[in-house]
Amino acid sequence: MKNSLETAAVLIETLPYMQDFYGKTVVIKYGGNAMINSELKNSVIQDITLLKYVGMRPIVVHGGGPEITSVLNKFGKKTEFISGLRVTDEETVSIAEMVLVGKINTEIVNLLNRHGSKAVGLSGKDANLILAKKHFAEVHENGRVSMVDIGFVGEVESINTNILNTLIDSGYIPVIAPIGVGKNGESYNINADYVAGEVAGALGAEKLIMLTDVEGIYRDYQDKTSFISSLSLEEAQQMIAQGSIGGGMIPKVETCIKALQGGTGKTHIIDGRQPHSILLEIFTSQGIGTQVVK
Amino acid sequence: MKNSLETAAVLIETLPYMQDFYGKTVVIKYGGNAMINSELKNSVIQDITLLKYVGMRPIVVHGGGPEITSVLNKFGKKTEFISGLRVTDEETVSIAEMVLVGKINTEIVNLLNRHGSKAVGLSGKDANLILAKKHFAEVHENGRVSMVDIGFVGEVESINTNILNTLIDSGYIPVIAPIGVGKNGESYNINADYVAGEVAGALGAEKLIMLTDVEGIYRDYQDKTSFISSLSLEEAQQMIAQGSIGGGMIPKVETCIKALQGGTGKTHIIDGRQPHSILLEIFTSQGIGTQVVK
Amino acid sequence: MKNSLETAAVLIETLPYMQDFYGKTVVIKYGGNAMINSELKNSVIQDITLLKYVGMRPIVVHGGGPEITSVLNKFGKKTEFISGLRVTDEETVSIAEMVLVGKINTEIVNLLNRHGSKAVGLSGKDANLILAKKHFAEVHENGRVSMVDIGFVGEVESINTNILNTLIDSGYIPVIAPIGVGKNGESYNINADYVAGEVAGALGAEKLIMLTDVEGIYRDYQDKTSFISSLSLEEAQQMIAQGSIGGGMIPKVETCIKALQGGTGKTHIIDGRQPHSILLEIFTSQGIGTQVVK
Amino acid sequence: MKNSLETAAVLIETLPYMQDFYGKTVVIKYGGNAMINSELKNSVIQDITLLKYVGMRPIVVHGGGPEITSVLNKFGKKTEFISGLRVTDEETVSIAEMVLVGKINTEIVNLLNRHGSKAVGLSGKDANLILAKKHFAEVHENGRVSMVDIGFVGEVESINTNILNTLIDSGYIPVIAPIGVGKNGESYNINADYVAGEVAGALGAEKLIMLTDVEGIYRDYQDKTSFISSLSLEEAQQMIAQGSIGGGMIPKVETCIKALQGGTGKTHIIDGRQPHSILLEIFTSQGIGTQVVK
Amino acid sequence: MKNSLETAAVLIETLPYMQDFYGKTVVIKYGGNAMINSELKNSVIQDITLLKYVGMRPIVVHGGGPEITSVLNKFGKKTEFISGLRVTDEETVSIAEMVLVGKINTEIVNLLNRHGSKAVGLSGKDANLILAKKHFAEVHENGRVSMVDIGFVGEVESINTNILNTLIDSGYIPVIAPIGVGKNGESYNINADYVAGEVAGALGAEKLIMLTDVEGIYRDYQDKTSFISSLSLEEAQQMIAQGSIGGGMIPKVETCIKALQGGTGKTHIIDGRQPHSILLEIFTSQGIGTQVVK
Amino acid sequence: MKNSLETAAVLIETLPYMQDFYGKTVVIKYGGNAMINSELKNSVIQDITLLKYVGMRPIVVHGGGPEITSVLNKFGKKTEFISGLRVTDEETVSIAEMVLVGKINTEIVNLLNRHGSKAVGLSGKDANLILAKKHFAEVHENGRVSMVDIGFVGEVESINTNILNTLIDSGYIPVIAPIGVGKNGESYNINADYVAGEVAGALGAEKLIMLTDVEGIYRDYQDKTSFISSLSLEEAQQMIAQGSIGGGMIPKVETCIKALQGGTGKTHIIDGRQPHSILLEIFTSQGIGTQVVK
Repeated sequence: MKNSLETAAVLIETLPYMQDFYGKTVVIKYGGNAMINSELKNSVIQDITLLKYVGMRPIVVHGGGPEITSVLNKFGKKTEFISGLRVTDEETVSIAEMVLVGKINTEIVNLLNRHGSKAVGLSGKDANLILAKKHFAEVHENGRVSMVDIGFVGEVESINTNILNTLIDSGYIPVIAPIGVGKNGESYNINADYVAGEVAGALGAEKLIMLTDVEGIYRDYQDKTSFISSLSLEEAQQMIAQGSIGGGMIPKVETCIKALQGGTGKTHIIDGRQPHSILLEIFTSQGIGTQVVK
Repeated sequence: MKNSLETAAVLIETLPYMQDFYGKTVVIKYGGNAMINSELKNSVIQDITLLKYVGMRPIVVHGGGPEITSVLNKFGKKTEFISGLRVTDEETVSIAEMVLVGKINTEIVNLLNRHGSKAVGLSGKDANLILAKKHFAEVHENGRVSMVDIGFVGEVESINTNILNTLIDSGYIPVIAPIGVGKNGESYNINADYVAGEVAGALGAEKLIMLTDVEGIYRDYQDKTSFISSLSLEEAQQMIAQGSIGGGMIPKVETCIKALQGGTGKTHIIDGRQPHSILLEIFTSQGIGTQVVK
Repeated sequence: MKNSLETAAVLIETLPYMQDFYGKTVVIKYGGNAMINSELKNSVIQDITLLKYVGMRPIVVHGGGPEITSVLNKFGKKTEFISGLRVTDEETVSIAEMVLVGKINTEIVNLLNRHGSKAVGLSGKDANLILAKKHFAEVHENGRVSMVDIGFVGEVESINTNILNTLIDSGYIPVIAPIGVGKNGESYNINADYVAGEVAGALGAEKLIMLTDVEGIYRDYQDKTSFISSLSLEEAQQMIAQGSIGGGMIPKVETCIKALQGGTGKTHIIDGRQPHSILLEIFTSQGIGTQVVK
Repeated sequence: MKNSLETAAVLIETLPYMQDFYGKTVVIKYGGNAMINSELKNSVIQDITLLKYVGMRPIVVHGGGPEITSVLNKFGKKTEFISGLRVTDEETVSIAEMVLVGKINTEIVNLLNRHGSKAVGLSGKDANLILAKKHFAEVHENGRVSMVDIGFVGEVESINTNILNTLIDSGYIPVIAPIGVGKNGESYNINADYVAGEVAGALGAEKLIMLTDVEGIYRDYQDKTSFISSLSLEEAQQMIAQGSIGGGMIPKVETCIKALQGGTGKTHIIDGRQPHSILLEIFTSQGIGTQVVK
Repeated sequence: MKNSLETAAVLIETLPYMQDFYGKTVVIKYGGNAMINSELKNSVIQDITLLKYVGMRPIVVHGGGPEITSVLNKFGKKTEFISGLRVTDEETVSIAEMVLVGKINTEIVNLLNRHGSKAVGLSGKDANLILAKKHFAEVHENGRVSMVDIGFVGEVESINTNILNTLIDSGYIPVIAPIGVGKNGESYNINADYVAGEVAGALGAEKLIMLTDVEGIYRDYQDKTSFISSLSLEEAQQMIAQGSIGGGMIPKVETCIKALQGGTGKTHIIDGRQPHSILLEIFTSQGIGTQVVK
Repeated sequence: MKNSLETAAVLIETLPYMQDFYGKTVVIKYGGNAMINSELKNSVIQDITLLKYVGMRPIVVHGGGPEITSVLNKFGKKTEFISGLRVTDEETVSIAEMVLVGKINTEIVNLLNRHGSKAVGLSGKDANLILAKKHFAEVHENGRVSMVDIGFVGEVESINTNILNTLIDSGYIPVIAPIGVGKNGESYNINADYVAGEVAGALGAEKLIMLTDVEGIYRDYQDKTSFISSLSLEEAQQMIAQGSIGGGMIPKVETCIKALQGGTGKTHIIDGRQPHSILLEIFTSQGIGTQVVK
């Protein structure tokens, strides 16, 4: 009985959050450890399903790095990286697409459906969802900057929201693989963070939630006490300019900035290694991770 | 943080119940202590609001006994009871209507709205919601049974569900006062239990939940160990016939039987003195109180 | 047969009015003798029902003065008036609400339904229809003006038209009791004239018709020959400023002015003591009473 | 003022009829003197417009006999009649169609629109509204019966109600010329009475009203005291069999019988020479003419 | 088999045109030889039906010159022409209306339906589709210009597109006879070219196609090598001003100019003597005739 | 010009077929050479796009045999076949899914979109489209029949048509990869022929068209003169029973039989090596290949 009372108490505590987010669009960038560890996987899937049932409109965008590398290895493809971006020839992008769309995406869709959601997987080719163009790598060498063609690495040109609204209005959860399509029909592998940001912007989402493998942003990431729970858009821009945000965190923060500029309400960089981190962000007063807001 | 984790854990535990009851109609008979004690009142209102937000279609039917008596007293009206039913002359039914519709109903509607629901109050006169006829008191005297006219005490002839569906489909919670209207336009005071049962039957509700001031049904109500958590329709009928269900519990159990026969999925007699008893019934595996089922 | 021919002739005469008002919103302030005299009552109810059947969208706002006083007396409450407004403590507003919502409103709804309409009663609490705030009494004493708190007497802050449109679009006639709800959930008794004007303004009604106990407005109300059948908004404002409109007529004329400013097409102050005065206003060329127009 | 009071009184008297016929389909066979006399014409047009405004769904089917003859004469065509039916060669049916569709129909449509209706003219060719086949004349000669081919005189095979419902649901009044189309695309002139009956049957109309140039049906048409105001379907069949209904009245009574069998509620043979006879039938208790009912 | 392969090849060639015009409105002015020659007639009807089936929204406006003259002759009416316009008294316009609406329009509607379309005929009186006013003839005499009243010859005041959209949205093809209605209900005979242009403008049609009896426009119409396949609006205006476009071609070019100014995408003057000229214009790269474009 | 005339002539010849199939559902099994040869590929894609534009509701189901084998080889997986079915372990089904969903499906979707369709790819996991169970191989050995478990080879249990109707009603072409999902979420590789047949049956399609690498069915497949252009369901069953249909043709004919039994109108086995074979089947009188019909 004690347990039951707790259940009731918690539900009542979360009611104000349900009321705030009723009917709102929430884009979730799903990636990192939360896609590998099977317990974390289940927890994310449950969280998304719950968002749907309490009346939100969740959309999932996923990445797939390690799985792609592992399949490339099986195929005996070696990959070179320039400025942190994989040099992507036609065979490589084709394998990346196969893995993202035919393996990772179908698995997420399947898990959601088995937990009682109605999910539908999409790549950027479905209904021309993600129109893309080539993204050049910026190489700094001998004091000079050059833009290097690294193949089928893309950036988003535009998002066609029609198919998303058709599916969401009929009760489905769209699950998006970050493959874009160019104007000659060629495939592009795109950083999933950026895709999530563009989708959030195009839909004017209430929230963009990015699952990462860190706790959030630190003013000085070697000093755990400098953790930042809320950051303004301007501060975020400044920290990138000053170099105090580094490495893999840059695309995430840039994505938040882009999404906010596109009309998204709030953006959150949260720790996907924490079970049910999405619920912690949405249904508790202290939240979790770092939010970047206007 | 520990608290937050619990929140997430509890939400996930309740997800299967949200999925089961999504889009389902739940009729709540609201009465007894839960209408008097202000803490209990808030807890019921929160429970109903939460049902709405997780996708159910709640409808509230309320009684109002003590408040009516108190106003009658202020007016200096003395009331006689025959076979447990209040002899109800025209002035009495008019006062009852005033109290039920103009005081109790507006208060419940107001509380729901202040908690973020969109509630609309209805009496049986609104859109002819409750068509009623005179209910006679059954008097056993000197071994003879006679039907005695006790004035404007009514029973339900039919429920016009149109206005209920119009409101629910537009996102409102209907709150119903148990006043019926006769074919000459006269008002009838009707036992709220019966009204709730008829409404649940007419809508083919998934659940009828009756808030009472007891824990539920006992096989022998003097023996606390004989508590019954689940009862079949046939057993319930038998227990009434055998006299093992007594007094004020009879209309409640009869209501459950009637609602089940009318197509309601499950009926529950629960303890309204227990805070959040509605949530305990719906969102926990052990439930609460006694269920009467087919 | 002669009778029948007259019937046909009259219907044809009224056809142009039916065409003019087809699909238009008409707000009727119902009060005064027309609410007491039972023949007048029937006549008003028939008029409103007819408006509905010939394609208009009628909405009723009612007052309830004398009935409230009579119930207050039965309760032994004495009431004081300041600047013509009843000093209204919590018990008084509660009684007023009970009478307005639980007695007068239900009676009007019931009469409409018995005449073949589908009416639904609303108070300002239903779906937060009438948001209100405290109205202070303006007291002139010793050459000084002060604002006196007289309790739960309110004025309209805003009208939530959603529930009105939901009901009208589904074929119902809304009947509104002039109880407003404050931001802490407290009830306010509001002058029904003002409520009618605010509702007409919020809906951009074609017409606001106010049933009163006088024939209309006189330039000099002691001179019956100075009757005014049409008054411009500016003239009306001037007459109030000059003091040539007096006493109980002021709120009515102010309501007309407010409604016109809010977008209502025409406003009419008509004599509710005249049977079928609403039809006389709408379906005859000379109309009845005084119209205030832009 | 006396006049105005009468107006109100009459409107109220007609309210019950408005309520009975709200949303109901009424087919009007328009013909005879009421199509020639310009005062009668206006009266019929006003009546139909009024039906529309008080919420009915009127449909007009018109004939056109004399006008056709007059145009045929201008063209120098002589016409022969066999068993009362015009022998109709290809040129004759073409002229009949031109007159019915291009003159009589457009005039009725135009009059309705000028009185504030939104009318649309249809012939049986529009959207294949009236599929028809050849109707042979029954000739009794020398004690033998033979079926004689008299050209393009048709009978209804089926009515395509789609276009009628499309127009009525969008607020238009369909006005139908009695030209049918055969399976090779040939035109047929059809008795407008029969077309009206078939349309009423196909739509399951509430009422079929046939405007004629007589007062109604007499048991013995030479005895004015033998007027029949109501006739059952069976009696009507018997009277035809017995020969007590004669000449031009036969197709009208047969049409009533057919319409009733097809599901029409009530049928009425009324005197179109009486101004506003349609209103007299619908909005007065004694009605007018003879009704044939199940 | 060779034939079949050609069929497939042609379908594929036409696919880009189907894609370009999917869901687009195309107004076709139907007149001239294509209305007389029965083979051409069938070809036009098939073309229009095909447009409907490949997803366009065709609307037909037809003329009827020679047929009107022939009926006028049968009636023994002589007609005078002033500045090329028929002097049109009341009887003449009535005959013209009869022929246009009751003969030519019904025939086109019938042909379309027999080919599998769902067509509905309209005159300008139906739902007040074409509101018109008197058009005066411009007479140049003795160096002076005067405007001469030639009776019921009209010009378009406005087009009520409601009935067109109602019919098209329900899958029907509207077929319009060029009869307008004046503010007193009088009929006007209007040049069908102008009606087509006004309809195209009012609907913001994608294309206006005018079937004529010439190949198109020549810079010098005596020099067959000076054929113009595309003309800008400005050039067209200039050519009229310079007198290099003459006679019957002027209303056609003016119509194109008017339609373009009203928002029509492209206008085409094509040779109706060429079988399937509509398809040639829409489904081949070289098109046919002269296009006038912005 | 000659060319243009041919274009028009062909369009008109195909009009009756457009009329017959307007709004009808056509399921296309896409496989064999038509998926490999790039010219054939384009021709199929154009055919499907054309079906959409002339008003049909096409759905594509594709196979993927050779591509799967080629990827399996790259991974160094050797595959064994039992009774013609690939023994499919977990890794194999995962690779098959990756290839079917992430490579073949995306390519078809992309081609359709580049030709102007709006296509969306689906696997059986999307919205639980294809629920499946294990299919055992039937092994005949030593005169005994045994059912052998060959891993994740599946058969269809049921098709959830909801997502198909949602997409088609919004103008999309669904493209389905033949991966089914079992009740524990496991993937099954299913013969695409069977999937196409089940989809056609579940939707009550008008037509099922199967692209193969043969001309159709021969009574004696070694005698080219014994070609069968139409076969009844019963004959087809007989021919299978008699062994006169052999090898790879059996699942195709069984699929036709199953689809017909499920309510599909007609089924067609056609030669995908013939460019535009789909158009040849639908838009020519002689059709192509062998039809199996009830």
